[in-house]
Amino acid sequence: MESSKNFDITNGRNLTMLVDFYEFTMGNGYFENNMGNKIAYFDMFFRRIPDDGGYCIMAGVQQIIEYLSNLKFFQEDIQYLRGKNQFSEEFLNYLKNFKFSCDVWAIPEGNPVFPGEPLITVRGPAIQAQFLETMILLTVNHQTLIATKANRICKAAGKRPVMEFGSRRAQGPDAAMYGARAAVIGGCSSTACTIADQMFGIPAVGTMAHSWIQLFPSEYESFKAWAKVYPDNCVLLVDTYNVLKSGLPNAIKVFKEFLIPNGYKPKGIRIDSGDITYLTKKCRKILDEAGLPEVQIVISNSLDEFIIRDVLSQGACIDSFGVGERLITAKSEPVFGGVYKLSAIEDEDGNVIPKIKISENEEKITNPGFKKIYRIYSKNEDKAIADLIALRDEKLDTDKPLQIFDPVFTWKRKKIKDYYVKELMVKIFDKGHLVYKSPDVSDIKNVVQEETSKLWPETVRLENPHHYYVDLSKKLWDLKQDLLGKYSYTYEE
Amino acid sequence: MESSKNFDITNGRNLTMLVDFYEFTMGNGYFENNMGNKIAYFDMFFRRIPDDGGYCIMAGVQQIIEYLSNLKFFQEDIQYLRGKNQFSEEFLNYLKNFKFSCDVWAIPEGNPVFPGEPLITVRGPAIQAQFLETMILLTVNHQTLIATKANRICKAAGKRPVMEFGSRRAQGPDAAMYGARAAVIGGCSSTACTIADQMFGIPAVGTMAHSWIQLFPSEYESFKAWAKVYPDNCVLLVDTYNVLKSGLPNAIKVFKEFLIPNGYKPKGIRIDSGDITYLTKKCRKILDEAGLPEVQIVISNSLDEFIIRDVLSQGACIDSFGVGERLITAKSEPVFGGVYKLSAIEDEDGNVIPKIKISENEEKITNPGFKKIYRIYSKNEDKAIADLIALRDEKLDTDKPLQIFDPVFTWKRKKIKDYYVKELMVKIFDKGHLVYKSPDVSDIKNVVQEETSKLWPETVRLENPHHYYVDLSKKLWDLKQDLLGKYSYTYEE
Repeated sequence: MESSKNFDITNGRNLTMLVDFYEFTMGNGYFENNMGNKIAYFDMFFRRIPDDGGYCIMAGVQQIIEYLSNLKFFQEDIQYLRGKNQFSEEFLNYLKNFKFSCDVWAIPEGNPVFPGEPLITVRGPAIQAQFLETMILLTVNHQTLIATKANRICKAAGKRPVMEFGSRRAQGPDAAMYGARAAVIGGCSSTACTIADQMFGIPAVGTMAHSWIQLFPSEYESFKAWAKVYPDNCVLLVDTYNVLKSGLPNAIKVFKEFLIPNGYKPKGIRIDSGDITYLTKKCRKILDEAGLPEVQIVISNSLDEFIIRDVLSQGACIDSFGVGERLITAKSEPVFGGVYKLSAIEDEDGNVIPKIKISENEEKITNPGFKKIYRIYSKNEDKAIADLIALRDEKLDTDKPLQIFDPVFTWKRKKIKDYYVKELMVKIFDKGHLVYKSPDVSDIKNVVQEETSKLWPETVRLENPHHYYVDLSKKLWDLKQDLLGKYSYTYEE
Repeated sequence: MESSKNFDITNGRNLTMLVDFYEFTMGNGYFENNMGNKIAYFDMFFRRIPDDGGYCIMAGVQQIIEYLSNLKFFQEDIQYLRGKNQFSEEFLNYLKNFKFSCDVWAIPEGNPVFPGEPLITVRGPAIQAQFLETMILLTVNHQTLIATKANRICKAAGKRPVMEFGSRRAQGPDAAMYGARAAVIGGCSSTACTIADQMFGIPAVGTMAHSWIQLFPSEYESFKAWAKVYPDNCVLLVDTYNVLKSGLPNAIKVFKEFLIPNGYKPKGIRIDSGDITYLTKKCRKILDEAGLPEVQIVISNSLDEFIIRDVLSQGACIDSFGVGERLITAKSEPVFGGVYKLSAIEDEDGNVIPKIKISENEEKITNPGFKKIYRIYSKNEDKAIADLIALRDEKLDTDKPLQIFDPVFTWKRKKIKDYYVKELMVKIFDKGHLVYKSPDVSDIKNVVQEETSKLWPETVRLENPHHYYVDLSKKLWDLKQDLLGKYSYTYEE
């Protein structure tokens, strides 16, 4: 038996080659054009919130750190690329001796994030900064998607714990493990995914499947056998045959005839099928009448935020939820559309030259330059008012009132007094060296709790939420207009 | 630089602990009740086809083989479990010395599969057969989902190649790698995911991103620089500024002023935004008029089978498609709902005792017993007529006419003459030993081509397809009825 395991995202794997092939063709092209070491800035950002929600929860930074810390090309990777007959030996040699040297900034995990603002900014040699695109997008897109979905589901569940039960429907092993991590960041109390507990210290939980019950001669015998093995933690699955006519009576029998007389406290029942509202109300009543008000009711059957909200609004008697496929795949909207776009380059003297990507579609136009983000909170209510994207060298005098304005509907202006600000992005790599320590999952989860509590209820609403403002500083807005004017084409039909 | 990489699903990882925690609580429970070595049979099957399609494409068997071949518990896994204070030392000792000894049957990858039929059957000690649930489901659910979606998309694209471009939106690294594998099985010609090429020998392709163009002083200069580096393989992305007014004219200029005079053949243009039908028709006309009819048009912008069908029906001029997020996540329906259910146990004398899981919902009732599947083909048309699930010990005399009947609407009967049959499931593990060699991805892809060509067009239709029959043999049907009668409860209200 071996004794060491590697629990970072690489898990002993080399993920350097998990990259879109065009990063290599471009890298080789930059190299051949002597542009490989040109300093470039890229922003990772997204354009809309899944499920038309009001906010997203940033996640995945720890795995980006692990990926960046393990970037290297193996001999066989070089061989593979050489076999493509597209790449120069000089470029392959560069890869062979690859040394990561970028600066990277990120919004720490757990913070609410909004469309248009950079979640990650990379500054470094074009050839390197470009190369990171695939894995930065993949990682943040996936985990932010699941953390956001989990937060919506947990908000719907109120104070009731939500357990992540989705491994079997996850899109591959990583989706199970990192999906469980993101789900707990988003608010889940625990997971059924054992390895996620080992990796991230998030509690793994579980009781029995229907097969347990079927393997015994009768449901009653299966329950009794279970109670004997797990007297302190006895949650019985009551829907194998019929919840009200068989499962619940058998569970009560075992609780009262075996557990209680032996000094144990029965813990709960789980229902995995049928009409949740009807069954949980009936079960609650029967349990209470049987003198078992402390026995909890756990529900787990294709749940999401809307079903949870609905059954609770109908008075369903539920103590905790197990949520599977609709959380682990973010079923209602399984794509988080983050993009990674060039925002600036540096000239030979180190001057930042902002770059813009124009588009017919206003929301696809990028914000140029090297930027930072202020979150502005009102001092009185301690609520977030807006985010302000500014150029990196701008300074904000928080003693003075702040005027912000909508970047499209510029007549919508707001003057803010009595505010404080937090700069959202922190540096995580300095010239290729890690300068940031990622918090534990439980600490990240606390950030989510604290920071979402500073959003107005109108913003966290599940449906038709209030639009949170992400504004541009006057200086950035002017720069953008200037570039738009410069780069835009006027054509005659 | 290290020189060895492990490209099976473990990738050097130990995935044994990627398991729902309840498999451990049940395992320990079986063990404590002296039922650990009781022989149990489990079937993995699914109940409905995603997107209301007519068929699914089986995928993931190779990764199940890799997973099963690497099952082992590390010292720290045992330590972790011991820390839960729920498991007996005897059980932990069993895990420490875990030796996989199950028989496993599977439908080989690439075959069309249908609801209700076992895709995988596991026979072995209850404690082991139960344990495999999570990873068997996760693996087949994920890859079958993506292979099925890819096949739909490729069917819509007709003979035009479809490239898999989704890594950046995949749900974690595995979803990118194994998603690419499944996409190529389903029919994609290539992938953008480099590591998938290394792992599975499926061609990785790619050209440039918008950032390439932005890093140069002008679009023209960026195209010219590209053409110089890749004269033999020059596909230019023409939508950074304006396809018709800037991108295409610049591309034509580079093709005609640089590539052709130097003896190279220009390859294509790629469009990643805008109205596909309008732009591709215009581009095709302009290219043809410029004497460049051989220049291909590649499209890549949030595509799926429906958009592809629509733009082609409008006469869009497209030579190949790059399909991203909607394929790699199966966005329209990102969950493949496979389940893993007990179907039988053996008594001390090795007699098979069939088990059934009953439910109020007819489709959730399982098929009991140890089974096999015949696919029945008509000799005349060489088309698949139906699948017939039979008990393992049944024999079919194909010289005699075969009467099949709908298992629910039993008066729907059909007598089949001039048919031949194929048994779908093959044994992949015998008492824990691998007895099957998984074909290469390209061979699996050929199976898909061949076997879907044997489905009637009515079954492969994208929408509202004809329902393919999966019937039960008379013997299995009788057994099921018998068990339903025995296990069903009659209650008084």
